[in-house]
Amino acid sequence: MDKVNLAEKLSLFSDHWNPRIVGELNGQHIKLAKFKGPFVWHHHEHEDELFLVVQGTLKIEFRDKTLELQEGEFLIVPKGVEHRPVAEEEVSVLLFEPASTLNTGNEQNRLTRPSLESI
Amino acid sequence: MDKVNLAEKLSLFSDHWNPRIVGELNGQHIKLAKFKGPFVWHHHEHEDELFLVVQGTLKIEFRDKTLELQEGEFLIVPKGVEHRPVAEEEVSVLLFEPASTLNTGNEQNRLTRPSLESI
Repeated sequence: MDKVNLAEKLSLFSDHWNPRIVGELNGQHIKLAKFKGPFVWHHHEHEDELFLVVQGTLKIEFRDKTLELQEGEFLIVPKGVEHRPVAEEEVSVLLFEPASTLNTGNEQNRLTRPSLESI
Repeated sequence: MDKVNLAEKLSLFSDHWNPRIVGELNGQHIKLAKFKGPFVWHHHEHEDELFLVVQGTLKIEFRDKTLELQEGEFLIVPKGVEHRPVAEEEVSVLLFEPASTLNTGNEQNRLTRPSLESI
């Protein structure tokens, strides 16, 4: 059992759309990721998903609106809701979601990361 | 579905050791709390608990050591592990834990908050 420093963990990787696991509790993962550019439209059949912006600005597009999150803001995307994260500039994000969650949800493509590294 | 600004939510209350619910996903709660002074020694029988410092410094005492968390640092306290949060100065903390989690765990006393307000 030791503490986790978000900035320190974020300094360990630089690639985009490849979340790292930095904590696990109650069957849930705490992940850190860097996003840049547009992701893919997807939804998660069974998992609600939380995005907390650690640094930068993150847009999350929905079919009927777009929400913009700044540092210190989070959004919970309920299961089943189609969304697409978009980052005009690089953004660092903390994710909180069940260990079973696949990053691209129902869409399997080149951005899908079936197994994530723990750092 | 709307975003949550941590600073804005924290401005809505000033009492200590009385967590507010600011989000719910997958049977887990996202809570915000302000701590000041020493809490009580306790453990959670069934729940791991995450403390993420939003502002200030938080010490978490264990029977064999003390960890000090600064802003941007988190700690997961596994179920069953006795701990006591202590804040020499006021600290703002984000908690991730199952909706079933009672703040004082196995100890029922004047600090116990059986039902929490959502803000």
